[in-house]
Formats: sequence, structure tokens, C-alpha cells
Amino acid sequence: MSDLSHGAAWIGGRILPIAEASIPVTDWGLTHSDIAYDVVPVWKGAFFRLNDYVDRFMDSLAYWRMDVGMSTDEITAALAQMVTASGLQDAYVAMVGSRGRNPIPGSRDPRDCDNHFYAWCVPYVHIVKPEQAQRGTSVWIAKSVRRIPKDSVNPKAKNYHWGDFTSGLFEAKDHGFETTLLLDHQGNVTEGPGFNVFALFGRTLVTSDHGVLHGITRGTVLEMAQARGLNIETRALPLEEFWTADEVMLSSSGGGVIPVARVDEHHFSNGAAGPVARQLRSDYFSWLEQDRFRTLLTAWTAKV
Amino acid sequence: MSDLSHGAAWIGGRILPIAEASIPVTDWGLTHSDIAYDVVPVWKGAFFRLNDYVDRFMDSLAYWRMDVGMSTDEITAALAQMVTASGLQDAYVAMVGSRGRNPIPGSRDPRDCDNHFYAWCVPYVHIVKPEQAQRGTSVWIAKSVRRIPKDSVNPKAKNYHWGDFTSGLFEAKDHGFETTLLLDHQGNVTEGPGFNVFALFGRTLVTSDHGVLHGITRGTVLEMAQARGLNIETRALPLEEFWTADEVMLSSSGGGVIPVARVDEHHFSNGAAGPVARQLRSDYFSWLEQDRFRTLLTAWTAKV
Repeated sequence: MSDLSHGAAWIGGRILPIAEASIPVTDWGLTHSDIAYDVVPVWKGAFFRLNDYVDRFMDSLAYWRMDVGMSTDEITAALAQMVTASGLQDAYVAMVGSRGRNPIPGSRDPRDCDNHFYAWCVPYVHIVKPEQAQRGTSVWIAKSVRRIPKDSVNPKAKNYHWGDFTSGLFEAKDHGFETTLLLDHQGNVTEGPGFNVFALFGRTLVTSDHGVLHGITRGTVLEMAQARGLNIETRALPLEEFWTADEVMLSSSGGGVIPVARVDEHHFSNGAAGPVARQLRSDYFSWLEQDRFRTLLTAWTAKV
Repeated sequence: MSDLSHGAAWIGGRILPIAEASIPVTDWGLTHSDIAYDVVPVWKGAFFRLNDYVDRFMDSLAYWRMDVGMSTDEITAALAQMVTASGLQDAYVAMVGSRGRNPIPGSRDPRDCDNHFYAWCVPYVHIVKPEQAQRGTSVWIAKSVRRIPKDSVNPKAKNYHWGDFTSGLFEAKDHGFETTLLLDHQGNVTEGPGFNVFALFGRTLVTSDHGVLHGITRGTVLEMAQARGLNIETRALPLEEFWTADEVMLSSSGGGVIPVARVDEHHFSNGAAGPVARQLRSDYFSWLEQDRFRTLLTAWTAKV
């Protein structure tokens, strides 16, 4: 039996160690970044909001006009089988649909390609280290790049077009910041590599609605905020307004709510994690363990 | 000896059949489309403008801040060794630099990744079938998408961010057209999947200069046009002006100069390949065989 503790993959019905999982160099998923994906967290032996993530993934596949030949139930079962086999109790679980290879030599027609599904999981990823998230992280607003507009590549259909994010990340690292946040071409705050962004003004929490992924964690944050009696607004968030926020925080399935202490040279909430952000972060880890959102891996273990 | 006649790949110094060439599912080249590439044609046993293509590839690597640990000469030798081994005399030869995997679990820092080079070749690809190119092909101007702006992902540094092109291609195929052409957000003509675009006005040939790849074939077309006594202009090309062109043509290392007979419902040059486009197409296939541009595969065969 191979060691799957560093991660596992599900490809064509086979489960293999993550280090052995690969896709062909001529797959359009690679050569045209013609690929849809989603990432669902597994926490303490259970998927969190599994149906929400898989449903969004199916929507992304449909948006990109891919038919991977598997139903929602079959994809869900593949994920569960893979994570169970890995033995991981806390995991980052990626589901991927790729355009695939074009079996007709020289064909440039995307309709000819063999679409396919695969999945992989690794130990749970925090996009910002927990120690740093607790203190409040630092964010650099990218100067050289703007977020790819939604009428070029729609970020609501989750995809691997990350060139703008990566350019921003290099800038951030060059300036000693942890991560980066991108503006759109109109000067509004959008999102960063793997996260949505929130700004708190008094008792009102604002997050961008356009040109961003509608993150499942973003949705969870909005629900948690309402449960705490905050007002929520999903709308364009101009940078000038953003600077006047009382608190700033990020949301990601890789770590939940991440308080931000500094953006560029501007310190928020006295250069520390703000009280509302800390509350919501704590709420998130509590919600991760609420039965209503959990799908236990052991539900499948019996079947495997 | 494996059969390499369908194509070959060079990965980590090994040459293998194209069907066996793959990259890991966790490589940032895939998961973040964090990858640079170029494609050089091989025609009748020789590379065409090899140094120009490899130089541009090295520029793209530098732009994306990748260090694949190989010199220009080493990359050139790898390409030659691979194509020679394949036995292909006419080939589409891709060279690729990928960000690679991040060896630090959970790290989101692109500087930590293991950048790497690989290459692959397949029989020569015509992006438009030669019969159709000779008649004049059909092009659909994408309505649902605009070209990714250069301040999001710079098209001058050749990359696999093709989501906008693929959306346009689906539209084109839905409407019965061969390929697609994208506008920028200002309404100028930019480029299509794998090609630049030219419009002829009297004796003046115009092609876009901004937000497009500066194709090697584009450069060859400009040189050939000047040799034929045409004036050339590289500048923004508004769609309204484009409609008034006498002829339209595409350029690609996958087929040279491709005359266009129809764009949307508009017929150019009487709905056939225009005389200047046909001349330049013929010139291109003649230039492909000029010694000054050729690097013979046999130059390496002796060394291999």
C-alpha cells in the first residue's frame, strides 16, 4: 500500500499518491488554462458545506461548457473515497474539471476535446499562517496589475487564471508583505490569491460583489456577521472608501477569517487584528464543527 | 525504442513519447497558469528563425521571474535533440517554463517554487486548414468577452491564459465560423487564439501594437510586406476602421499568413482570399525555406 499521508489523488477511478498524480502536457487544461476547479475543506474528519462546494463546482463546469461525464453524486463519492483513503482528518481537497486533450490531430475546436475530472487532497492549507492571522496579517495593493475583468475571464466560475495574482504576490513579497489585493480597472477593491476581502465601517460589513469569486467562505462570513447583528452590504468597494474602514479582514476556505492589521503603509484597528475580525475568526472555527454543515468521512468509510 | 512519430517530449533531460509526457497536478504552471511558453516551427528539416523564438522565450521567462536553470544554448540543444529523436521533418515545437511545485508544504510564496523547463513537439499544426486558408477563412468577433488587458496579464510575455480566447472560440463555432478575434476594452481589434491580425488599406498594412503578442510571424509579415513595397503601421486598430479594410489576414507560426474572406457578416476582398494576402502567404512559405532563417536539424544530428 502506497503512503498517501502527504496527499492523494483520484484520477480515472484510481487513487494514487499525490506525488504521482499528473496531467498530460498537451491537455488544454494546461495549454489553455481551460480548467475549472473548486476546493472544499475537510476539518476534523468531516467535509464542511460539501454540497455548496460541489454545487458551485458543477456550476463552474457548466459555465465553461465542460461535460466530465460524472454526476454530482459520483464526484462527491470520488472525493470522499480519496480523502478516506488518504487518512487525512484535516485536508485541502481540490476537485478539477479539465477540457482535456483533443484527439483530432491539429484540431483547434474546443468541442472536440475529451473533458475529464480529477481530484487531489493534501493536508489542510492555511493561506496565511495561523500565528500571523491571529496577530493580523499584512496586505499589499498591487500597483503593476489589475484584476482580470469579468468580461475577459469570469472569476465567478472558479478557474486557474492567476497570472494577475502571482504578479501581485511577487510585488507583495518584494515589499515585505504577506499577500496581495487587486483593484479592478475602475479602482475598486476586488479579491486576492485565494480570498475575498471585507471592510468594516461601524457595524456594517462590506464586501465586493462584482468581478470576484462568490466564495463559500465569503457566504459563511456574511451569515456569521448577520448572526452577530452586523449589517452586510455586497457592492462595489472603492479604494478611497476602503482606506476609511475600521477593520479589514480576508476570507478563504484555507483558514476561514483572516484579520488584516496593515494594508500598504496604512494601519487598521491600531495595527492589530480588530475585535470584530477576531470574533468572526473564532465563529468560523466554531461553525466548522457544527453538525448542520458537516459531512462525516465515516459516512463513506462503511461503504468503501 | 519507443515510437516518437506522433510527437516527443524533453523532460528533465529525458526524451519520451508525447503521450507519456505530463506535469504534476500541483505544479503552479497548472494550478496558477504560472507558465511561459513559445512555439517554433520546424519546416522541411530545419527550425525557422530559431534564435528569435528562443530569445523571446527567454524574455518571457525573465518577465515572469522564472529561472529554469538552463542557458539559451542548453534550451536550444534540448529542442534540437528532441526533434531529431522524433524524426519529424515538419513540426510544432513547444518550449515551456513552469513555476513548478512549491516544496514547502502550505507555502503560498512563488519564490519558493522549483522552476523547470520542458519541451514537446508534434507534427506541424496549421491553425486553419490549408485548403480553407487558401480560400480565405471566416472569423467571428467575440461578443461575450474582451481580450485580457495587458495590465492584468501581459500578452507580450507569451502565456497560457487563454480563457478569453476559448470563450470566443465557442462563440465562433456556435455561429459556424472557423476562429475568433477579440477586441480590447476600448473597442480595438487585438488578436485571436494563436494569431495576430492585419488589415490592408490600399497599400498600407496595419496591425495592432498594444495588448497583443509581438509574434515572430507578425514580424516576418511586416518584413515581407516592406519587401513588397507596402507601407506598414503598428498601432491601435479601432473596429470601425477595421470594417473598411480592403483585405484582412492572420499570421501564425502555425500556417504563416492566413487570408480572411469573412468577419461576422462582412465579406472582405469579395468574399475570397485577397491578392495581397495570397502573395504574402506564398512569400511566407518561400521564406520558410530561405537559408538565412533556417537552422538545420542535421547540424545537431552529428552531435547526438
